[in-house]
Amino acid sequence: MIVNGVTKRTIWPIRQKGCVGIIDQTRLPHRYEIVELHSVDDAARAIADMLVRGAPLIGATAAYGIALALKSNQSDKHLDNSYNLLHSTRPTAINLRWALDKMMAKLLPLPPSYREENAWKLASEICETDVEICRNIGLHGLELIKKISQKKKGTVNILTHCNAGWLATVDFGTATSPIYHAHDSGIDIHVWVDETRPRSQGAALTAWELGNHGVPHHLISDNSGGLLMSRGMVDLVIVGTDRTTANGDVCNKIGTYLKALSANDNGVPFYVALPSPTIDFRLTDGSTIPIEERGQHEVKWVTGLDKQGNVTEVLICPEETPAMNHAFDVTPSRLVTGLITERGVINADTSSIANAFPERVLST
Amino acid sequence: MIVNGVTKRTIWPIRQKGCVGIIDQTRLPHRYEIVELHSVDDAARAIADMLVRGAPLIGATAAYGIALALKSNQSDKHLDNSYNLLHSTRPTAINLRWALDKMMAKLLPLPPSYREENAWKLASEICETDVEICRNIGLHGLELIKKISQKKKGTVNILTHCNAGWLATVDFGTATSPIYHAHDSGIDIHVWVDETRPRSQGAALTAWELGNHGVPHHLISDNSGGLLMSRGMVDLVIVGTDRTTANGDVCNKIGTYLKALSANDNGVPFYVALPSPTIDFRLTDGSTIPIEERGQHEVKWVTGLDKQGNVTEVLICPEETPAMNHAFDVTPSRLVTGLITERGVINADTSSIANAFPERVLST
Repeated sequence: MIVNGVTKRTIWPIRQKGCVGIIDQTRLPHRYEIVELHSVDDAARAIADMLVRGAPLIGATAAYGIALALKSNQSDKHLDNSYNLLHSTRPTAINLRWALDKMMAKLLPLPPSYREENAWKLASEICETDVEICRNIGLHGLELIKKISQKKKGTVNILTHCNAGWLATVDFGTATSPIYHAHDSGIDIHVWVDETRPRSQGAALTAWELGNHGVPHHLISDNSGGLLMSRGMVDLVIVGTDRTTANGDVCNKIGTYLKALSANDNGVPFYVALPSPTIDFRLTDGSTIPIEERGQHEVKWVTGLDKQGNVTEVLICPEETPAMNHAFDVTPSRLVTGLITERGVINADTSSIANAFPERVLST
Repeated sequence: MIVNGVTKRTIWPIRQKGCVGIIDQTRLPHRYEIVELHSVDDAARAIADMLVRGAPLIGATAAYGIALALKSNQSDKHLDNSYNLLHSTRPTAINLRWALDKMMAKLLPLPPSYREENAWKLASEICETDVEICRNIGLHGLELIKKISQKKKGTVNILTHCNAGWLATVDFGTATSPIYHAHDSGIDIHVWVDETRPRSQGAALTAWELGNHGVPHHLISDNSGGLLMSRGMVDLVIVGTDRTTANGDVCNKIGTYLKALSANDNGVPFYVALPSPTIDFRLTDGSTIPIEERGQHEVKWVTGLDKQGNVTEVLICPEETPAMNHAFDVTPSRLVTGLITERGVINADTSSIANAFPERVLST
């Protein structure tokens, strides 16, 4: 993606300094700041405090976190402790566990002295794998957008929720990858960006990304998508996913389900950009997915830039008002037009998913 | 409703001072300030600057505005000028015009010296009419809640959107009237309050009202209702309406339609509290209702109290991001379980509405 005119990734090793560079996403969109991670504690903090966010980028950061851990101590015990530390930062993030398990499976059998060098290599491979997945999601999604564009002969309006963007991955994003690929290949597109309360990732991150890359877009309140769809102002929806079950039920940022219902009610195609590592084959459907409940502060207080140019937060309700803050919801597969995976666009059902990823299906 | 332990209305004449008291709603929820209106200019300013809001309360304020105008000058010309001044404050507010026309029709035929006394009386009658409508909506809605409570034998969870509350009317509110009546009659209820971006009326006003009156509630992001309904955490939805068409299509604050879709998908009853003056019999359905498009500022900037106790606003997206701001959406009648009117709960269809309000049906 292009940031300030320069093509960049969201995470990169700085080998000469033995550290890893990331963008502090909590400072966006008002400040663009690079942070260096020098230890496994730095990596864990970056994940826990959401300097990095998004399943793939969390996975990549955790992988580099293991590499950073091994700088000082290569023992089994320290590997185990580091695994536990990193895993505990966001226990529901499936990519985090996937990346950590991959690192452990390869590193534990090695003699301790071989581990650090291999950890850096493995973390880099995990990043490259993510970039390839996102690129392929983009190319398959591009074909969908191309078809709509050819049929419509006008601007293709795409609605997206939250930030399943470049910032959530190592490059391209998931839901945004088809958007960037379509824009870069000259298709006339326009994006409706859901604000995505309570953390406003759409307003803060997706709008920032799209603006930097030059993709036409408008920010809207989360309440708006229904009206826009009912008045023919949305041609397709593309969202990301934190976890998708074996039958195609999609767990994603709270509010996704409401947009899927509206798309369904108005005949608007609803696609989920799905990197296959986020498929959880252990779950047969979404009804049992535990939903993270976060603190009430981020519902009651909104962060932004004040008139004096300071990042601050303001209370939008009476101080004593209690708030409830669920982070995700589940969109049942019946509302999903298709899953845009790295292996092509497939139906959201058990057999289509199993056919596309046979090596991942659990033996019973 | 109870405010600071005292039973209050939102507008009240102070006869010994020849003025009218209101609450400055632009200062809520962070400041509770009473303002006295001493002249027709004061009343016009209170409406234009949104110190008062909500169709019924705007109508009541305009009616008292005429009474205030007649304190100094009872001539036809001054009545006309006052009408025009008050009407120009919110020209699209249907209740404003209705109240002003009612005042003029009764006052103009009277000799000037009789006008002032009658104006105060008429304004008071307009308020009482609104209070009666809201009370009856509350009593009919109470029966619905009572039935759910008896069946469930546990807390009844009600979700509401925006502020169709006490603050928008003279007393009780519309969507909140069943809630206050249920709470006051000892039914165990709990309210999910949609924040209602972009103007956050749920967070600022509904949460403030419910808190003052002692009704248990939680503030939630607008994105949350779908998850809560899918997990059995909502027993019914009650919203208000700005305008309902002859067939029962409901125009209300943007985002209402998304909650109706979710209620429908989860078998949760979805009710609209409908004071009959908001039925627009000229419109056969909601597809042609013009939707007010407001400025982008309120999508990009959020108002609240900063840590120093000052009311301020913060920018939640990059400064150059463009935003789109539609104020309302239309919920089709097929998604509406029932309309809670002052004459009882009726189905949302042409014949049920016509049967309930035969005197309002337009002759063709």
